[in-house]
Amino acid sequence: MTRLFEPIGCKVDLSTGAMANATGSYQKRFRDLDGLYADAAAFEAMRATWGERIVYEVSEFRPTEQSGDLIFGVTRMAPGRVGDEYFMTRGHIHRQADRPEIYYGQKGHGLMLMESPEGEVRIVPIDAQTVCYVPPFWIHRSINVGDDDLVMLFCYPADSGQDYEIIARSGGMRSRVVAGDGGWRQVDNPDWRPRDAKLVSALYGQQSLTVLA
Amino acid sequence: MTRLFEPIGCKVDLSTGAMANATGSYQKRFRDLDGLYADAAAFEAMRATWGERIVYEVSEFRPTEQSGDLIFGVTRMAPGRVGDEYFMTRGHIHRQADRPEIYYGQKGHGLMLMESPEGEVRIVPIDAQTVCYVPPFWIHRSINVGDDDLVMLFCYPADSGQDYEIIARSGGMRSRVVAGDGGWRQVDNPDWRPRDAKLVSALYGQQSLTVLA
Repeated sequence: MTRLFEPIGCKVDLSTGAMANATGSYQKRFRDLDGLYADAAAFEAMRATWGERIVYEVSEFRPTEQSGDLIFGVTRMAPGRVGDEYFMTRGHIHRQADRPEIYYGQKGHGLMLMESPEGEVRIVPIDAQTVCYVPPFWIHRSINVGDDDLVMLFCYPADSGQDYEIIARSGGMRSRVVAGDGGWRQVDNPDWRPRDAKLVSALYGQQSLTVLA
Repeated sequence: MTRLFEPIGCKVDLSTGAMANATGSYQKRFRDLDGLYADAAAFEAMRATWGERIVYEVSEFRPTEQSGDLIFGVTRMAPGRVGDEYFMTRGHIHRQADRPEIYYGQKGHGLMLMESPEGEVRIVPIDAQTVCYVPPFWIHRSINVGDDDLVMLFCYPADSGQDYEIIARSGGMRSRVVAGDGGWRQVDNPDWRPRDAKLVSALYGQQSLTVLA
């Protein structure tokens, strides 16, 4: 007999960004994000005061990791900048690269920065009550461009997995988001290197990235 | 070359329950819900004034129906009762019965009424900022037990499908939710008939329900 999983309700606290009945959680502190930002000197200057502070955190409900199931949770990111670059997540592509994800803005002002395997860039603003659909194959990273916490619900197929290395291997994402006159602006990342044809092909072909690494 | 799907942002309007950039929508009017409620006389008495009114409506974003993809959207249900029974959706089990679904309360006061193939019943209250995880294999129906619209975001695997007949074939769900002293209460449905062992087994075995019908 198939074993039934118990239904559950998970209350989201918008003030803390925590979710009740989560099966797991993690925090990313400022010091964990070394190398993510363009301005290394600004990062070093902030380390003394910011080093142990939580930049973003995730609480999730992960019933299983079986194909066809869903994982969901809540992410909260503090407001701030390193130099002129806004706080952001490490970003990832799904290890099964054809898996999508949705993010639902609950509080604050965010962006989803996305990059295709070939290097096309898209940005979708996420304010409260905006659902962002990140389609299969898009590398994605969220960015807090507001003055308040950015809180979002997320949901993705349980067999997606995450590859957090794909961005570092290309010298960062192709675009960075920095403070401009009266708002954010998108600038080119001069360190970005295109992925080679073999990796692009492997991503679309669903080969495991761990095999390639 | 795999064709990339374009990222998108979909703004949810909590006052109307509509979602921008939806790929589809549908409405259920009162007259569509004949046979759903226990009190047939009360239903008939309401038909003259309520017949054409929308009891609930859905707007959805359906990128594809491929395995591994996600469908999401927003549902809005009016407040009301037929006799003492609260307004509710028809309810369904997924055609691929091992597919789950999440609902995220945005406005109003709802319940998710769930029933396992064997007839176990669970109820999860869904207020604003409550995520309800409906695990694989649970028949589910949402109920508006509040005085305001019930608005929820939903997300489910794109290959789930819906079987809306499973409930009618058992004479309704095993429990009904009616107005009680100062709130809702759960009562037995005397018309409910257990599913036979063959159907229960088929649901767990992932055979297509259309083949069985």
